[in-house]
Amino acid sequence: MKHPSEQSPPPGIRARLHEIIFESNTPAGKAFDVALLWAIVLSVLAVMLESVGPIRARYGPVVRIAEWGFTLLFTLEYVLRLFTVRRPVLYALSFYGLVDLLAILPSYVSLLLPGAHSLLVVRVLRLLRIFRVLKLVNFLGEAEVLLTALRASRPKITVFLGAVLSTVVIMGSVMYMVEGEANGFDSIPRGMYWAIVTMTTVGFGDITPKTVPGQFIASVLMIMGYGVLAVPTGIVSVELAAATRRGGLNPEACPGCGAEGHDVDAVHCKFCGTRL
Amino acid sequence: MKHPSEQSPPPGIRARLHEIIFESNTPAGKAFDVALLWAIVLSVLAVMLESVGPIRARYGPVVRIAEWGFTLLFTLEYVLRLFTVRRPVLYALSFYGLVDLLAILPSYVSLLLPGAHSLLVVRVLRLLRIFRVLKLVNFLGEAEVLLTALRASRPKITVFLGAVLSTVVIMGSVMYMVEGEANGFDSIPRGMYWAIVTMTTVGFGDITPKTVPGQFIASVLMIMGYGVLAVPTGIVSVELAAATRRGGLNPEACPGCGAEGHDVDAVHCKFCGTRL
Amino acid sequence: MKHPSEQSPPPGIRARLHEIIFESNTPAGKAFDVALLWAIVLSVLAVMLESVGPIRARYGPVVRIAEWGFTLLFTLEYVLRLFTVRRPVLYALSFYGLVDLLAILPSYVSLLLPGAHSLLVVRVLRLLRIFRVLKLVNFLGEAEVLLTALRASRPKITVFLGAVLSTVVIMGSVMYMVEGEANGFDSIPRGMYWAIVTMTTVGFGDITPKTVPGQFIASVLMIMGYGVLAVPTGIVSVELAAATRRGGLNPEACPGCGAEGHDVDAVHCKFCGTRL
Amino acid sequence: MKHPSEQSPPPGIRARLHEIIFESNTPAGKAFDVALLWAIVLSVLAVMLESVGPIRARYGPVVRIAEWGFTLLFTLEYVLRLFTVRRPVLYALSFYGLVDLLAILPSYVSLLLPGAHSLLVVRVLRLLRIFRVLKLVNFLGEAEVLLTALRASRPKITVFLGAVLSTVVIMGSVMYMVEGEANGFDSIPRGMYWAIVTMTTVGFGDITPKTVPGQFIASVLMIMGYGVLAVPTGIVSVELAAATRRGGLNPEACPGCGAEGHDVDAVHCKFCGTRL
Repeated sequence: MKHPSEQSPPPGIRARLHEIIFESNTPAGKAFDVALLWAIVLSVLAVMLESVGPIRARYGPVVRIAEWGFTLLFTLEYVLRLFTVRRPVLYALSFYGLVDLLAILPSYVSLLLPGAHSLLVVRVLRLLRIFRVLKLVNFLGEAEVLLTALRASRPKITVFLGAVLSTVVIMGSVMYMVEGEANGFDSIPRGMYWAIVTMTTVGFGDITPKTVPGQFIASVLMIMGYGVLAVPTGIVSVELAAATRRGGLNPEACPGCGAEGHDVDAVHCKFCGTRL
Repeated sequence: MKHPSEQSPPPGIRARLHEIIFESNTPAGKAFDVALLWAIVLSVLAVMLESVGPIRARYGPVVRIAEWGFTLLFTLEYVLRLFTVRRPVLYALSFYGLVDLLAILPSYVSLLLPGAHSLLVVRVLRLLRIFRVLKLVNFLGEAEVLLTALRASRPKITVFLGAVLSTVVIMGSVMYMVEGEANGFDSIPRGMYWAIVTMTTVGFGDITPKTVPGQFIASVLMIMGYGVLAVPTGIVSVELAAATRRGGLNPEACPGCGAEGHDVDAVHCKFCGTRL
Repeated sequence: MKHPSEQSPPPGIRARLHEIIFESNTPAGKAFDVALLWAIVLSVLAVMLESVGPIRARYGPVVRIAEWGFTLLFTLEYVLRLFTVRRPVLYALSFYGLVDLLAILPSYVSLLLPGAHSLLVVRVLRLLRIFRVLKLVNFLGEAEVLLTALRASRPKITVFLGAVLSTVVIMGSVMYMVEGEANGFDSIPRGMYWAIVTMTTVGFGDITPKTVPGQFIASVLMIMGYGVLAVPTGIVSVELAAATRRGGLNPEACPGCGAEGHDVDAVHCKFCGTRL
Repeated sequence: MKHPSEQSPPPGIRARLHEIIFESNTPAGKAFDVALLWAIVLSVLAVMLESVGPIRARYGPVVRIAEWGFTLLFTLEYVLRLFTVRRPVLYALSFYGLVDLLAILPSYVSLLLPGAHSLLVVRVLRLLRIFRVLKLVNFLGEAEVLLTALRASRPKITVFLGAVLSTVVIMGSVMYMVEGEANGFDSIPRGMYWAIVTMTTVGFGDITPKTVPGQFIASVLMIMGYGVLAVPTGIVSVELAAATRRGGLNPEACPGCGAEGHDVDAVHCKFCGTRL
């Protein structure tokens, strides 16, 4: 999906800036991307560290100054992006445009509403901006095969999740009935939370069956979950194998005997020896 | 498995109603299915919400009225189904007939026996009615491949579960002997519950080994469970690959003997030798 | 592995008894096996129920009488087996001979040593006798493929377990050093127990890292365990696929064109049409 | 990777010692390796046992004497290795050279700094020396296939881990915001620790969501982790299958151009067309 602004860049300095900010073919564009990557990682790190009580107590002012530095930097970048694209409104409403805005908005809002501390966590979404850079420099060719396999698995995994969710609703209700409020299963949604924790083999242990029938039903659910866990793995394995095979075979047929399925590095047909 | 009532519908208005309720080819039938789907989902949601204490306290009357609306709706539907099928007894005793009855019965019973509150949870089984609708509109073609793979895996998974259960009995008894009542292992069934929780890697932590030999035995069981977890996954992967491959078989029947199921690279029928 | 006693049965009534007890071709032999299967399952159930406090308190005498019934039955069977085999000593020292003895010994020992209650749990090993019956009636043809795949996977799984155990030793020591006795990591073996609980994703939560560096190291270990879990699954999948394929392909080459890889039900070569 | 010292051993007694210590072709070299293996295992066991409080209290002096025996033994071995290799500095700075040093250093340091008890745990790294012995005697041919598969999986697994880590950062921040300090999520890093514990299905239960929205978000994360767990398994399965298959390639080189790696069904060389 090409960004609307990338099709015909405006002339002059805007075109130059556009090339630096949105593309990564030129040295300047590449340097910009690398700098942006570091700024993103460091700013997310700052958000994370600021949330730690002792660090906030001791290094609070330092972190806050760094944070404002990043905010001003990202604001400048956002303004430049708006300036250099041809259709700023389209950009501002695109997915990455909104992420760019969310990366700077919380800091300004917290100036106006001093109580909005929890809002600052939203800045962690800056992390999503990394994918923009990676997408531009085409860093992750390998991701393609994975995504192809996952996309091909989606219909089967949807069916599978539907079956899992039905089991969760029914088992959650059964446990609510069997164990009851006294043992922590105080509503059907709570029972469903327990059923998900159990079927996915996470098993926090914050809610556990206490009665004998409850433990028996839990055992059945766990053994079922054991077999069930195998299904998505099987699905993804098969689709990954297919995606790998498709990427790894020569699509051409032999002009001599018409045989297919040659390796990508084959020069001659492996059955009749004709040059491919 | 064809429903007995679908073979030769009765004439007149009953036939028309039958078409709407049991089939989904006509626009009216489709609309009925979609409406039913929504009614099922909303009524299950109502059952779930009613079980939540604070919601019951505040919105109790609203939820109860909605609940009675769904009950009357499903009762009407149940009566219509009985009226439009040719052999009502057969329908009433079929799997979906019983589910349809269970979906409405608890509400009426709770009128007669005011104490039967826990019975109301049974209404969550209405969820199973979703599969009836999905089956009719043939929503889930993908489910076929999954079911084929699971059906083919069944004998192997049964053998596998037998081995797992034997391990559970023996390890549960060993831990009952080693850890004893003081550490929560107060009977062999309790030890088996713990062994299942451990082998399936759920690990609630409600019962854990406290003694050194107990922790050693638990470690062995966990490492074993680690390798064992691989078996059902491998089984399902292999069968899924086979089911997918069979989906890629040559769809043509042999012009000579009519046999199907030839490989895609087959030139001659593998049964009679006729050229395909 | 043929049992030494099965090669040339003694003549007369001993031969007849031998046939009933050790073989399952005759109707009497089959009936004996089915009866034995039920006796084993029921006696294991009795051992399990006797371990439950409330049941022992109320139905103690009944369970104990049933238990002695099973013990006498198995004693009779053991004596008959000794009587009908040609070389009783060899049988008595074989794996199943020892299991047969362990199935009855604890009851007699508990008569002499009244304090040896915990010994009674040993009787749960009677469960192993089920496999003797299943082996004789050849119940589990499917188990062959599974065992072949597991046997083929063994060298790879051994290497894999070696790597896992090394990680467990090193991570357990690191956590002992980092977290220390105050947080439950009171020795290296305890740290190893924690590392196994964590790497296998069981996660009881009886011992958990409390310090920040400890939680960081635990996170690394968990993410590693995540990727590592994939290895045995992959191994078993590949070997199972190989075992299934070997069982499912015609080993013959076509006499006409020499092509291989025909299905087992193929009558004609799928490439040239020659009769196989 | 050949060790620099193995290329041209020095003459005389040094050459003889070098052969014994670094190679394992001669009977003396093999005996040395086996003895070293035992010394390593026993010394690691001693370190482990010394960390257990009651054992240290009772058998402290015995363990300490054994420990010093191993230290002197490994010191002698280290000196001999330095003496017999051609370029001692290169050896001392190599990976195994450093491991050899770390195996003896802590004991000596603890003489000078009596408080450095925790340092002694470092000696558990002696375990790494096992791999040196195994590498020399070429014990683990099977490990090759596993390593090949893992190496081939690395790029895909890296991409996958990147996606997992991004999810961990975002979900950790969300839970910090939703649950807050009162429920144990007292910073974003703590939330990330919880997210890792949950996504890997370890589920210690030391920190668990208490609020309804928190439990809902946790449910979504667990179901996601469920599907996600399938991806590395699929990757490793596919690569293992490929590595195994390559093991099944045509071992013959082309008589025309000498190229290797032809499929088993190849009739002509795929590079130059010569008949194989």
